Amino acid sequence: MDRDILQSYLHRQIPLSTAMKVEVISATMDNVVLSAPLEPNINHKSTVFGGSASALAILAAWSLLHLRLETEGHASEIVIQSNRMDYDQPITGLFTATSSLPDGADWAGFVKMLQRKGMARIEIGSILTYDEKIAGRLSGRFVAFLNQK
Amino acid sequence: MDRDILQSYLHRQIPLSTAMKVEVISATMDNVVLSAPLEPNINHKSTVFGGSASALAILAAWSLLHLRLETEGHASEIVIQSNRMDYDQPITGLFTATSSLPDGADWAGFVKMLQRKGMARIEIGSILTYDEKIAGRLSGRFVAFLNQK
Repeated sequence: MDRDILQSYLHRQIPLSTAMKVEVISATMDNVVLSAPLEPNINHKSTVFGGSASALAILAAWSLLHLRLETEGHASEIVIQSNRMDYDQPITGLFTATSSLPDGADWAGFVKMLQRKGMARIEIGSILTYDEKIAGRLSGRFVAFLNQK
Repeated sequence: MDRDILQSYLHRQIPLSTAMKVEVISATMDNVVLSAPLEPNINHKSTVFGGSASALAILAAWSLLHLRLETEGHASEIVIQSNRMDYDQPITGLFTATSSLPDGADWAGFVKMLQRKGMARIEIGSILTYDEKIAGRLSGRFVAFLNQK
């Protein structure tokens, strides 16, 4: 998927991503990298608001799952079920979220379950980076529902 | 704290809360209740984006801790350390986040530690409600740092 297509999809469908000035840096089957500047995401301490940090990490994780399912032709709806977020460092400038499948993730098993049962769950991770250091970590649990044909 | 003061503080200091059209419904020592409408927080499925749901829950939790510390005269900086968020139901309209101290929370112990060590940690919970049903639950871990006098 072209990164411009993903970016315009996010901005069109999720207005908060426009308010946050989210940009798609890259989008492959391995990772989706999103960035956001400080200004629209700032808090009273002149650092990034935790809600913005979480939102960027969730968007990156969701985008990777969406892209993988779409690329492989499994038209699905994706819902976030839960997430854990750790805020490791204050962020005081442009930051990125890089999503990936966790080590040991069973993508083939997930797809098989999705095809067989019409729904399946998977964990996706996102790492927030600021100033070349890890600033936060999200682990998100998503449910995919295969669209009826 | 007057709810108008809290609302203007949030909107002034955290521009994302303005973009989300967050309103303060009530703010007491027991609970802070915030609301947000669907439109600025919508996603591609016409439900509330998980990032918006998380952000409202975090804002409610942070606001309660801020209000309690300020009311008791413990001028502090508050940082979110981690959170767990469960998305129980899709939200398709105006929703609220109600924060509270979890059952068994040791507020007195937290304040004692803050005074003695200059920092202390506490968990705050937020419940998201939509259409009179629980739609999500956040448990957030915050660190407070006593300001130098």
